[in-house]
Amino acid sequence: MIRVGVIGYGYWGPVVARNFRGTDGCELVAVCDKSPSLLERARKNCPGVQVTCDAAEVVGSPNIDAVAVITPVWTHFELAKAALENGKHVFVEKPFTSTAAQAEQLIELALSKNLQIMVDHTFLFTGAVRKIRQLIDDGTLGKLYYYDSTRVNLGLFQHDVNVIWDLAPHDLSIVDHVTAETPEFVVATGQTHLNGFEDLAYITIYFTGKMLAHINVNWLSPVKVRTTLIGGEKKMLVWNDLDADEKIKVYDKGAEIKNGSGVYDLLVSYRSGDMWAPKIEQTEALAAEAKYFVHCVSNNVKPFNDGAAGLRVVRMLEAAEKSLKQRGTPVRV
Amino acid sequence: MIRVGVIGYGYWGPVVARNFRGTDGCELVAVCDKSPSLLERARKNCPGVQVTCDAAEVVGSPNIDAVAVITPVWTHFELAKAALENGKHVFVEKPFTSTAAQAEQLIELALSKNLQIMVDHTFLFTGAVRKIRQLIDDGTLGKLYYYDSTRVNLGLFQHDVNVIWDLAPHDLSIVDHVTAETPEFVVATGQTHLNGFEDLAYITIYFTGKMLAHINVNWLSPVKVRTTLIGGEKKMLVWNDLDADEKIKVYDKGAEIKNGSGVYDLLVSYRSGDMWAPKIEQTEALAAEAKYFVHCVSNNVKPFNDGAAGLRVVRMLEAAEKSLKQRGTPVRV
Amino acid sequence: MIRVGVIGYGYWGPVVARNFRGTDGCELVAVCDKSPSLLERARKNCPGVQVTCDAAEVVGSPNIDAVAVITPVWTHFELAKAALENGKHVFVEKPFTSTAAQAEQLIELALSKNLQIMVDHTFLFTGAVRKIRQLIDDGTLGKLYYYDSTRVNLGLFQHDVNVIWDLAPHDLSIVDHVTAETPEFVVATGQTHLNGFEDLAYITIYFTGKMLAHINVNWLSPVKVRTTLIGGEKKMLVWNDLDADEKIKVYDKGAEIKNGSGVYDLLVSYRSGDMWAPKIEQTEALAAEAKYFVHCVSNNVKPFNDGAAGLRVVRMLEAAEKSLKQRGTPVRV
Amino acid sequence: MIRVGVIGYGYWGPVVARNFRGTDGCELVAVCDKSPSLLERARKNCPGVQVTCDAAEVVGSPNIDAVAVITPVWTHFELAKAALENGKHVFVEKPFTSTAAQAEQLIELALSKNLQIMVDHTFLFTGAVRKIRQLIDDGTLGKLYYYDSTRVNLGLFQHDVNVIWDLAPHDLSIVDHVTAETPEFVVATGQTHLNGFEDLAYITIYFTGKMLAHINVNWLSPVKVRTTLIGGEKKMLVWNDLDADEKIKVYDKGAEIKNGSGVYDLLVSYRSGDMWAPKIEQTEALAAEAKYFVHCVSNNVKPFNDGAAGLRVVRMLEAAEKSLKQRGTPVRV
Repeated sequence: MIRVGVIGYGYWGPVVARNFRGTDGCELVAVCDKSPSLLERARKNCPGVQVTCDAAEVVGSPNIDAVAVITPVWTHFELAKAALENGKHVFVEKPFTSTAAQAEQLIELALSKNLQIMVDHTFLFTGAVRKIRQLIDDGTLGKLYYYDSTRVNLGLFQHDVNVIWDLAPHDLSIVDHVTAETPEFVVATGQTHLNGFEDLAYITIYFTGKMLAHINVNWLSPVKVRTTLIGGEKKMLVWNDLDADEKIKVYDKGAEIKNGSGVYDLLVSYRSGDMWAPKIEQTEALAAEAKYFVHCVSNNVKPFNDGAAGLRVVRMLEAAEKSLKQRGTPVRV
Repeated sequence: MIRVGVIGYGYWGPVVARNFRGTDGCELVAVCDKSPSLLERARKNCPGVQVTCDAAEVVGSPNIDAVAVITPVWTHFELAKAALENGKHVFVEKPFTSTAAQAEQLIELALSKNLQIMVDHTFLFTGAVRKIRQLIDDGTLGKLYYYDSTRVNLGLFQHDVNVIWDLAPHDLSIVDHVTAETPEFVVATGQTHLNGFEDLAYITIYFTGKMLAHINVNWLSPVKVRTTLIGGEKKMLVWNDLDADEKIKVYDKGAEIKNGSGVYDLLVSYRSGDMWAPKIEQTEALAAEAKYFVHCVSNNVKPFNDGAAGLRVVRMLEAAEKSLKQRGTPVRV
Repeated sequence: MIRVGVIGYGYWGPVVARNFRGTDGCELVAVCDKSPSLLERARKNCPGVQVTCDAAEVVGSPNIDAVAVITPVWTHFELAKAALENGKHVFVEKPFTSTAAQAEQLIELALSKNLQIMVDHTFLFTGAVRKIRQLIDDGTLGKLYYYDSTRVNLGLFQHDVNVIWDLAPHDLSIVDHVTAETPEFVVATGQTHLNGFEDLAYITIYFTGKMLAHINVNWLSPVKVRTTLIGGEKKMLVWNDLDADEKIKVYDKGAEIKNGSGVYDLLVSYRSGDMWAPKIEQTEALAAEAKYFVHCVSNNVKPFNDGAAGLRVVRMLEAAEKSLKQRGTPVRV
Repeated sequence: MIRVGVIGYGYWGPVVARNFRGTDGCELVAVCDKSPSLLERARKNCPGVQVTCDAAEVVGSPNIDAVAVITPVWTHFELAKAALENGKHVFVEKPFTSTAAQAEQLIELALSKNLQIMVDHTFLFTGAVRKIRQLIDDGTLGKLYYYDSTRVNLGLFQHDVNVIWDLAPHDLSIVDHVTAETPEFVVATGQTHLNGFEDLAYITIYFTGKMLAHINVNWLSPVKVRTTLIGGEKKMLVWNDLDADEKIKVYDKGAEIKNGSGVYDLLVSYRSGDMWAPKIEQTEALAAEAKYFVHCVSNNVKPFNDGAAGLRVVRMLEAAEKSLKQRGTPVRV
C-alpha cells in the first residue's frame, strides 16, 4: 500500500487527489495547501485525510511513501528535493522544474536514494496519444515529416509564467514521447499584450532526421482549438482533441518524388485514399497514470515519464524561452 | 476601351483572361503561351482573340494598352519591364517579382512612363477580406494583437519556388492591406522533405505596435485548412474561407488587465459575449479586380494594390527566405 | 426549509438529489431505492440522509414536505398519488404519467389538497431554451412556421418504453413551452428492430395557426445529433445542443410572397442577411429548476411546468403512441 | 453516333446539353425552349446546334435519335410520348411523370417500339451513391434498418409542384436503387406557408423486411443540409453530401439483443468500433449518366434507371401526395 500526500489543492490538485484515492494499492493520507479556503474544500472532499497548511508536515511525515507536488512551477524544485531527501517518491506536475539544472539535481538525488520520480505528463496516458504512439511505433505513419499543434483559447492567463510554460509542455512531452528523433534547435517567437508575460507564442523545433515540430499557443484566441497534424511518409494524421467521437483521423494520403525521364524532372505524385478513425479508449488519463505510478513505486520500475523525460521537456522550454527573448534566434538544445 | 493581352495560359491565365473578357470597357485582344496545347485551348476558349507563342508580339503590339503577366515568378521582371518600356500598363500575378530590387526598378520605370502597375493580390477583392478591412477600419476590432493564418493542404508542389513563395503572398498581401502597422522583423522556419524546396514553413512577422503576424503554410497536410484568427483589443475574428455560409465570425470576446488593490495585482478579466457572422458579398474577386484595373488605367488612378504594395510583399518574402536559410534567425525587413 | 425525499436512485435520481442538496431553503432528508447497490451508493454520496428501500417510508414520513419521484414512468402515478394523499408536494420525472387519465387524477388531487406538482421538464431551464423562448416572446422570430428536432444516438435502449416515451418528452415539453399554439393532430411512424419496443420513430404534430412540429427520435443512430430548426416568418434559428460555444444561431433569412403583376404571379422573394449567435447562460438547468421548485412550494405559486404542462405532454405522447400503432393514422389530441 | 435533342433550357437543360456534347458516341444536334432569352443563351453556348422554340421540330426530326425532356414535370408525358411515337429514345428529367398511369403508358409505348427510356435519377451516378450501393450489396452494412434523409435549405420554391415533388425524388430513387425491399405504405405530413404548395414535408415509407425510410424536405430552412443516415444490422453509415472530402462515414457501431438468464431478460448489448471514410470517386455524375445513356441506346440495353424505375418513384410520390392531403393517413403503394 503506497501512502500518498498531495501538496497543492488549487485547480489540478483535487483531481490528482481524487485519482490517487480511487487507485488500488494506494492510500491518500494527506493534503496540503496554504489557502484556508482550499483546505476547507479538501476537508469536505477527503474525509479521513490529514489536511495541513504546512508542506513540511507532508514531506517529513513517516507515514507517507510518496509526495505529489501540484504547486506553481517555481516551487517544484524545493518541494520535490525535500521529499526526496526524506525518502519519498515524487509525482510532479508539469513542467518538471523551472530550469534544467534543477531537474538534473533532482534526478541525481532520486537515483542516489533509489527513489522514483514521475512527471505528470498526463496527455501521455490519454487514449489518443497512446493510439498515436502505436501508429508511429508499428510503422503505420512511416518516417515522420512534422508534428504541428495548435493549442489556443481565451485565457486562462497565468500570473507567474508565460503561455509557453503553461501550454507547450503538453505538446513537448507528447512529441518527445512519440518520436525517437532528438531536438537540435528551437526557435520561438511571440508577443506580450496584457500582463507582461507572452500571451501568444510560436515554437519551431528542428529534430534530427529532418522532423519539424511546431507549436502554436495562445491565450487570446476567441475559439478553443486543440488540433495536431502529424505528417508521415506513409500516412498522415489529424488529432482533434475536442472531437468527442473521432479524435484521431488517419489519412491514406501523401506525396512522393518520382524521377522523370530528364535529369531535372523531379515529379511529385500524389496519393489520396481512405480515411480511418480508429476507436480511442475513453478511460480517464490521470487514473491510468496514478495506477502506473503505484505500479512503478511498488515494483521499483523506472517510469517512461520519469525525471529524464521531464528534463528533456524543460530543456526545450528553456531553449524556447531563450529564443523568444531574442525574437526567434535559433537556440541549440 | 482598354485592350489587354494576357501572357501565360496555364492554371491562372485562363481565369484572368475570362475575367478581362467579361469586364466592361475592356477588350481581350491577345493571349500568349509557350505551350502548343495551352495555345490550342486558348484558341478554343477565346474565339476572335490573337493567340501567339511569342511574348514579344504582345508586349510590342501597337494594339495593346495593358499586359497581364500570368507566368512563373522568375519571368515577371523581364516581361513586365518590356511591357512598361513599350508603354503598356501591367497587371502582374503575385508575387510581384523575385527580388525587391526588381520591384523597385519596375516601379520607377512605370512612374517615369506614367503607367500603372497592378499586382494581382486577388484576395483583397474577396467579400471576406473587404469585410475584415472594414471591421478594422471602423474600429470594431480595436487595436490588433495578432493575425494568425493557417493555409495548408496536400500539394500542389511548385517546381521553381518553395511553399512560402507559393502560398504566403496571399496572407502577406492581406495583412499588409488590413493593418497600418509596419513590419520590422521576419522569422521563418521550415523543412524540405520532397523536391528540394521547403514544403512546410512557418513565418512570424513582428510589426510595429506589438502586432504579430504568423503564417503556417504546408503542402504536406492531409486536410485543407484556410483559417485565420485575428485578435483585437475589442473583438476577435475567425475567418474560415472554406465555410460556404459563415466565412467570418466576429466574437465579442476579450481579456483586459485590471489593477487589483495591491501593487502586484495585475488581474486579467475576461469578456465573452455574442458571436456575429456578417453577410459576405459573394461576387467573384477577380471580376472586381479586373474592373478596378480598367478603372485605374482609364482614369490614371494609382491602385491600392500597386507596385509599392507588391514590393512590400516581396520584401517580406525576401526576409522570410533569408531567415529560413538560417533556421529562423530574425531578419529585419 | 423544504424537506425533500427522493424516490429512485438510478441514473437521474443522484443528479436530482445532488441538486436539491445544493439548493438554498431546501434539505434532502431521504433517498429511496429498491436496489441494495444503489442504496449503498446513496449512503456514500449523501451522508446524514435517511436511506431506505421502502417508498412508503418516504411518502408517509411526517418529516418530509416534498417528494421527488424519479422512477420508471409506470410507477409515477402510484407514488405521486400516495405522496399527494399524504400532503406532500411532488416533483415528478418526465414523462409525468403513463396516461392522461392518471395525470388528470393527480392534478385534481393536488388542487384539492392545495399542493404543488412540478414535472421535471429539465430542458425548459437550460440557457438555450430560455433564449429560444425569449426570441419568440419578443417577436424576433415572428410567427412560427415549424419546430423540427432531431434527437438521435446509439442507445440507451429502455426496457419498459419505446423511443418516443424516452426521448420525445424533451421536445414535446419544449414546443409546448415556447409556442402559444395548440396541438390538433399527431402522426407517428416508426419501427421496432431489437427489443420489441420502437427504436426509431418520427412524430409530426399539427398545431393551430399552421405551425408544424416534427420530432425524429432514434436509438439506432451511429452519431449523436441534438439539432432543432425553428422557422419563423421573420427569422430562423438552429439550436445545436452539442455545440459547446454556439448552441443557438439566429439567421436573418426568410422568404416571402409578393404579388406579381398578373393574377397568377405569386413571386417568392428571398432574404439572406447576417447570422447571430447570442451568448447562452451556462448554469446547470436542474439547479435552476430545484431552486424554482423550492420557490413555488414555499410561496404557494403554481409552476409553469406544473401538472397541466405534464398532462399536455402526456396527451401528445398518448396520441403519438396510438398513431404509431396504426402506422401513422392521424390522431386528434 | 447518337444524335440528341434537348427540350428545355432553363436550369438543368444547359447542364444536360453540355454533358451530352461532351460524351463520346453522341452528338448534340438540337436545343429547344419557349423562352427567347434562353434560346439566345443556347445559341451562344452551343454553336452549330439547331436552336428552336418548337418542340415538335425536335420530337419529329428525322435527324434525331434521342430526345432529352428537361421541362416542368406536367409536360413530361406529352413530350416523351410524342418522342417515342416518332421513334426516339427518351431521357426524362426526374420525376418521370405526374402520374403512375402516364408512366405505365410510356413504358408500354417504349416496349412496343423497342426504344429505351432513361429517367434522370442523377444521384445514382454519384460516387457517393455508388459506394453506398456497393456497401449494401457486399453485405458490409448487413440487413437495413432504416434510411433517414434530411434535404433542406432556403428555397428554391417551385411554382407548379410542392417540396415533395421537387426534392423527394432524389431520395426515393436512391432508396429504390440501394435496397431490394419493396415499399408497402407511405405516410406524409407537411404544411404550406407561402405559395400554396407545401414548403416543408416529412415522408415515412414502410418497406418489406421492417425497413423504414424517412425523408425530411424543406424549402424554409436557414441552413442547407444534405445528410442521410443509414442503419444496418452490421454497420451504420452517415452520408453528408456537403462534406467535400469525407462524404461517407461507415461506423462499426450497433446494438444487438442477447437473451439474459431469465425469460424476460432481453438485454441489449452495444458495439462501438472504428469509423472509416472510404474514398469516393469525384467524377461528374451527369457525365457518367450521359455515357451510360449512349451505351444503353447503342447496344439496346435496358438501363437500371429505366421507365420502371421512374414509375416506382412516381408511385411513391403519388402515395405521399395522397397521404399528405389526408394529414398523414397511411396510403398503400
